[in-house]
Amino acid sequence: MILSTSSSITHSIEVVELLGVLAFAFTGIIEARKKGMDLFGVYTVSMIAAFGGGTIRDLLIGNYPLYWITHSSFALMLLGFALASSFLGTAFYENKQVNNAFEVLDTLGLGLFSTAGASIAQQAGCDFYISLLLGVATAVFGGVLRDIVCNEIPKVFRRNELYATCAFVGSLVFLVSLQFGLNTLAAMLIGALATVLLRLFSVKYNIKLPF
Amino acid sequence: MILSTSSSITHSIEVVELLGVLAFAFTGIIEARKKGMDLFGVYTVSMIAAFGGGTIRDLLIGNYPLYWITHSSFALMLLGFALASSFLGTAFYENKQVNNAFEVLDTLGLGLFSTAGASIAQQAGCDFYISLLLGVATAVFGGVLRDIVCNEIPKVFRRNELYATCAFVGSLVFLVSLQFGLNTLAAMLIGALATVLLRLFSVKYNIKLPF
Amino acid sequence: MILSTSSSITHSIEVVELLGVLAFAFTGIIEARKKGMDLFGVYTVSMIAAFGGGTIRDLLIGNYPLYWITHSSFALMLLGFALASSFLGTAFYENKQVNNAFEVLDTLGLGLFSTAGASIAQQAGCDFYISLLLGVATAVFGGVLRDIVCNEIPKVFRRNELYATCAFVGSLVFLVSLQFGLNTLAAMLIGALATVLLRLFSVKYNIKLPF
Repeated sequence: MILSTSSSITHSIEVVELLGVLAFAFTGIIEARKKGMDLFGVYTVSMIAAFGGGTIRDLLIGNYPLYWITHSSFALMLLGFALASSFLGTAFYENKQVNNAFEVLDTLGLGLFSTAGASIAQQAGCDFYISLLLGVATAVFGGVLRDIVCNEIPKVFRRNELYATCAFVGSLVFLVSLQFGLNTLAAMLIGALATVLLRLFSVKYNIKLPF
Repeated sequence: MILSTSSSITHSIEVVELLGVLAFAFTGIIEARKKGMDLFGVYTVSMIAAFGGGTIRDLLIGNYPLYWITHSSFALMLLGFALASSFLGTAFYENKQVNNAFEVLDTLGLGLFSTAGASIAQQAGCDFYISLLLGVATAVFGGVLRDIVCNEIPKVFRRNELYATCAFVGSLVFLVSLQFGLNTLAAMLIGALATVLLRLFSVKYNIKLPF
Repeated sequence: MILSTSSSITHSIEVVELLGVLAFAFTGIIEARKKGMDLFGVYTVSMIAAFGGGTIRDLLIGNYPLYWITHSSFALMLLGFALASSFLGTAFYENKQVNNAFEVLDTLGLGLFSTAGASIAQQAGCDFYISLLLGVATAVFGGVLRDIVCNEIPKVFRRNELYATCAFVGSLVFLVSLQFGLNTLAAMLIGALATVLLRLFSVKYNIKLPF
């Protein structure tokens, strides 16, 4: 019973994580289309946005083989999305409801990537603070690399609503929950929830870092 | 007899690959000189253009030690070229025949780097699609990093004639040829040939990706 | 006696190296503040400026685990500095004496990072020339990554006073001193001294690379 609940939770996380990958990939597609890139550019930027953060984390801790290299179906799926994006007009990318939907997925991805990143770093032997940092890096460095390739100052470094800070708080809640004896799955869910709530709160009330 | 033919083919490939390294390095020198960089900048950008693609591939698959780190004569040779580039006036870099000659070398390099990259990825255990992607990455990411360092949106992502697509097709032809039982050397030659022909065809008839 | 002298020298080097890390981090803070980044941006850029060079060296030679990942107190300390930088007005960052003080620390860091980087590369089995290059990379690539993230052409590639060249000469002096039989510590001090003197000389007399 517990097992089946737990595995249905795991399954749910996998589904949402997949949605997170797609959301991050989609931010890459939007950015690349705005810059007038061709299909190859769009595909590359979407791959970088989706897998860049986890790749940087894994290179920093020497965590081989990389996930997307041993699970090529993700890369193939993103190729399908990059191709499909060619047939969608600019109206689609500017549609408010579409952007809202992807904003929600992006926020879910932020929460799951940060806690999953912190968890992987900790399992690789990193201490509390470095695991925290690598959780944040997993969640935000895909976007940082996406913006660098598109020749922009990374959005996440600018004074907008809270974004990296949400990943920071989510990773922190995750790691503290672990120390209080929660199991990894429960701690991940609580951490991801903290990320998502703080992000929604920040967007709604337009809260920024004071400095 | 077969062995000697084969080794003379290998020797030919090595010569052309060396020309490819030089051509890629030269694109870095040209770009850096245009930006008014000093000798150190020119040298660094030429190293990045020549070895960046292979380095990214090797970091992604954990393929240590890196080739240029254990074969320092390449890096020394590029230092010689960066130095020599100081004594060539801007007229040389703008000369049409010089640019044409390097365009040809760059195309050869594109073909050989993409098939060699796909081959190395496959030998490291990557599956068909990831080997294909890493073949393309080997061929084009030196140029991507060169453009990022020079603060430009990577040329290869813009809507020009086919470039990355040629590397993609060449890697694909190489990997499919292997599956049809050809030996690595023959498959590499066919793949590189496909890359070069598609590239020449695209430049001649100004063909771009339709989306 | 010799041991105690030697360990007090080691201690001195550690202190100056720490000052070098701080100086490099501070250049990141200044650059990020100038770009109007928020606390997260400032912290990230300062981390990249301080640890980027050594991280690139270690990734290129597969030298795991990374120093700053196993010594998290550095990353925590930089967080303190990024936080503190929020409370300092722009007047502080534009104060000439402050800038001069950090210029001196930056030069010390340049000397120690280049020789330490060359030493680590050599111990990892790199030959003379690659060790030389990786010494330079250790000293300057933090600044290169800092500038790329801030969407600027890396300062070190532009025609200013000598900078990378000083790291090059310092690494060269270090490696040649080793070949003449000096011990690592003495060779590092001589190499770092050469870096610092050449840099001061270059700034004072406004010497640039002639090409």
